[in-house]
Amino acid sequence: MTPLTIAVLGSGPVGRALAGAFSGLGHAVVLGTRDPATTTARPEHASWSTDHPTVRTSTFADAVVGCDLVVNASGGDVTLAVLGLADLDRLDGTVLLDVSNPLDHSQGFPPRLSVSNDDSLGEQVQRAHPRLRVVKSLNTMNNAVMADPRRLGSSTTVFVSGDDADAKALVTDLLTALGHDDVVDLGDITTARGPEMWLALWVRTAVALGTSDFNLKVVRA
Amino acid sequence: MTPLTIAVLGSGPVGRALAGAFSGLGHAVVLGTRDPATTTARPEHASWSTDHPTVRTSTFADAVVGCDLVVNASGGDVTLAVLGLADLDRLDGTVLLDVSNPLDHSQGFPPRLSVSNDDSLGEQVQRAHPRLRVVKSLNTMNNAVMADPRRLGSSTTVFVSGDDADAKALVTDLLTALGHDDVVDLGDITTARGPEMWLALWVRTAVALGTSDFNLKVVRA
Repeated sequence: MTPLTIAVLGSGPVGRALAGAFSGLGHAVVLGTRDPATTTARPEHASWSTDHPTVRTSTFADAVVGCDLVVNASGGDVTLAVLGLADLDRLDGTVLLDVSNPLDHSQGFPPRLSVSNDDSLGEQVQRAHPRLRVVKSLNTMNNAVMADPRRLGSSTTVFVSGDDADAKALVTDLLTALGHDDVVDLGDITTARGPEMWLALWVRTAVALGTSDFNLKVVRA
Repeated sequence: MTPLTIAVLGSGPVGRALAGAFSGLGHAVVLGTRDPATTTARPEHASWSTDHPTVRTSTFADAVVGCDLVVNASGGDVTLAVLGLADLDRLDGTVLLDVSNPLDHSQGFPPRLSVSNDDSLGEQVQRAHPRLRVVKSLNTMNNAVMADPRRLGSSTTVFVSGDDADAKALVTDLLTALGHDDVVDLGDITTARGPEMWLALWVRTAVALGTSDFNLKVVRA
């Protein structure tokens, strides 16, 4: 696919994994973070940055300037705040890939969902930023599998939800380039409720297996 | 495994599928229904009954007398009422396999869940019937796959949740006999929240695929 300029918002493990993977595919990637000085001073960031020297780290607001695609890789509890700091209303029609989950850890483990059933974080993001085209995807697996699904040795499934067909096509191309070979288009952004509510089973399966290095495959007859 | 006496409560497609499958495995099966005269007069019941002549149809309360295992195959919206009619408090320590889902169709399609996130129907059943040993399982797939997972041509995953290890072992033996070759024990009955919340993704995946003839496989690295 044509190289894109991608702003990955969130400098935690998910953001680093996706920024590195997209950079490895030849895209121009900027990693957005709240405080670049603090982030770049972290040892885990420094070692990651050595492996991905072309990825620039900047503020959320600077990261999105001129980008073709915004990736929300921030935690679900701060997603709306992070997207607010990125000043996304300067953008028009830009695709926003939302990989976050509305996990509420305040009541202990396992986390509950802060929004579910009749709404979703994906829908909240779309409502907060109506000029962007939100696609929910990749939230159903850990960051290592997001970036390299072939590590599991067998085809697994990833979902896309969003109101705009072209936006989902762009994200699907990107997913395919990462190695995702079974992309299921669930429909509009309200269908994000499904992949987000899967987290309740994902987290308990991770406990039972003693690892998060797994993914679901939708096995058809 | 040793032949059991199994009371399957619910005479809809799920109940018929499971009662037929358990009977086919050599267990003594009674199908419980609200009104046996009305149920047995239905054409779909008559044709099913012809294929499974040893399965008796009786009231919920009669069905459970002397059984080794109760299977709740009633709809989630009537589960607590059905189990009330079955007068389960006469039983002590009996295993109750709950395959229902708390689907609320009152707001249209897709259904929402009537309970989720901080509670589950499996937990409600266990709280309502503390003398029984509730195991949640099989609710994550359609009734054809429940009864015959090999129809999918590839291994898929089924989950068990429950407070009693022996009860889960009994259910696991039964699942294995049906052809389920990947049983994941999630833990106590509170873990039923995971498999029940998966329904939000299951129903949207069924729409996207145009079929419910699928199941999930947890693919490990």
